[in-house]
Amino acid sequence: MKTLLHSETKEIQIDSEGPIVIIGEKLNPTGHKKLATAYKDGDFEYVKLLASRQIGAGADILDVNVGVPGIDEVALLPKVVKIVASEVEAPICLDSADPAALVAALPHTPGKPLINSVNGEEASLSTLLPIVKDHNAAVIGLTMDDEGIPHDAETRLAIAGVILERAAQVGIPVEDVVIDPLVMAVGADSNAAVVTLRAIELIRKEFGVNISLGASNVSFGLPERHTLNEVFLALAASAGATCVITNPMRYTLALRAIDLLLGRDEYSARYIRHYRALSKGSD
Amino acid sequence: MKTLLHSETKEIQIDSEGPIVIIGEKLNPTGHKKLATAYKDGDFEYVKLLASRQIGAGADILDVNVGVPGIDEVALLPKVVKIVASEVEAPICLDSADPAALVAALPHTPGKPLINSVNGEEASLSTLLPIVKDHNAAVIGLTMDDEGIPHDAETRLAIAGVILERAAQVGIPVEDVVIDPLVMAVGADSNAAVVTLRAIELIRKEFGVNISLGASNVSFGLPERHTLNEVFLALAASAGATCVITNPMRYTLALRAIDLLLGRDEYSARYIRHYRALSKGSD
Repeated sequence: MKTLLHSETKEIQIDSEGPIVIIGEKLNPTGHKKLATAYKDGDFEYVKLLASRQIGAGADILDVNVGVPGIDEVALLPKVVKIVASEVEAPICLDSADPAALVAALPHTPGKPLINSVNGEEASLSTLLPIVKDHNAAVIGLTMDDEGIPHDAETRLAIAGVILERAAQVGIPVEDVVIDPLVMAVGADSNAAVVTLRAIELIRKEFGVNISLGASNVSFGLPERHTLNEVFLALAASAGATCVITNPMRYTLALRAIDLLLGRDEYSARYIRHYRALSKGSD
Repeated sequence: MKTLLHSETKEIQIDSEGPIVIIGEKLNPTGHKKLATAYKDGDFEYVKLLASRQIGAGADILDVNVGVPGIDEVALLPKVVKIVASEVEAPICLDSADPAALVAALPHTPGKPLINSVNGEEASLSTLLPIVKDHNAAVIGLTMDDEGIPHDAETRLAIAGVILERAAQVGIPVEDVVIDPLVMAVGADSNAAVVTLRAIELIRKEFGVNISLGASNVSFGLPERHTLNEVFLALAASAGATCVITNPMRYTLALRAIDLLLGRDEYSARYIRHYRALSKGSD
């Protein structure tokens, strides 16, 4: 299945057969004090730098989140989206917990963006899906609902089904819903990754939709997080995920390696190209 | 399925459900000049050091190979096996292309070792399987035959079938044959890893046997081999491999991460223990 996104000038296709699409996560101020300050101060040069640096490192899409406590997201999100869109060609992933901010930003977002995110909570479904439909966007659907995040893969599958059904009811085509089966910290629950990997397989098998993941949660609280995250990305890709929200500066090489080993990179061309870009950057 | 190996004092179980068993590869002089020289000079202190260092780094079994051009393996292999067995408790994986060296070393190998390796060539099957049976050993079976290494997974499956059948004919139980479906360099053939991963799945499904792999071949000729190897180990484990011939000093952390993420490490205990041992070692 193919989810097509585009900016004014560039199309990106998330394909359930791969290769892996990278959504750059660095324009999110959570735990990123310098960006939070830049947003507050209106220092958009730093925003531009983070945008172009992520594209240089291999990001296909840029997540844009302005969620800083006390900030007016409705005013700021459209502004930042315009700045990012003027700086890079990549499609945008609009990331906000505030529907009003999304509604404000969408008219200023060129092309067909991805919206991050709807979930199975009734309030989320009834508020956000019409917005997604009205703007002909695509959306990430998180497999959690009013009961929280299920501990088992089967319930996550069921919630994915509810999101897809409700999306269909308002006229959003199935390929425009990308399901994120959620990764919890394996340090808190040794079974956490297994549940996510199984949910990916079940959702892929049942609905054939694209799967997106934020991978770095899995290693929270444990040492050597980079190794855990790389290995988890490989396991998730093996289970069927082809879209990752991550730090492209740290994980693009591993993601190119995964695509190469899964037979999606003839003559190792993308892998070697990325390696050369890295070597050049570090000269 | 469980393959049981033991030294005089220690049992190691290769279980098709995991966790991953590590066969330390560093007692192999191929491309390792210092060890080749040590073998030639009879400098067994270096051999002892490599043995204990690998165990310290997480190896469960030690591969012992004395194949240096011009060396008398029949004389040397028994000697090195005795030295390794006196230094560490781990079971031994006897690694030689010379059946006479294996025959000479087996009486000096305590417990039940693994023999590396038989393959589908008629000469290999008819010579080696009776030796394996006579000494009540287990054996690694490589999926290649008189035609070479097949380019497709189905033919590798067929060769695995031949090896298992011939082993059964001489009275070797199926659990004492560990199949190695062979990894070729992905830099030479972009499809190489896909074929191996598919062969693992097919062989696991058809025969249920344990799968062993030497993972580092896959990255031959490419840059950033460590990332490629780690990612490949995750994909191979996901496909069903639970035994790896590798450098424990470089890959144990990733292998512990894989076991943790596959739900085989309650409370992250082994992962954290290995991390602490690493930190201590680097103090």
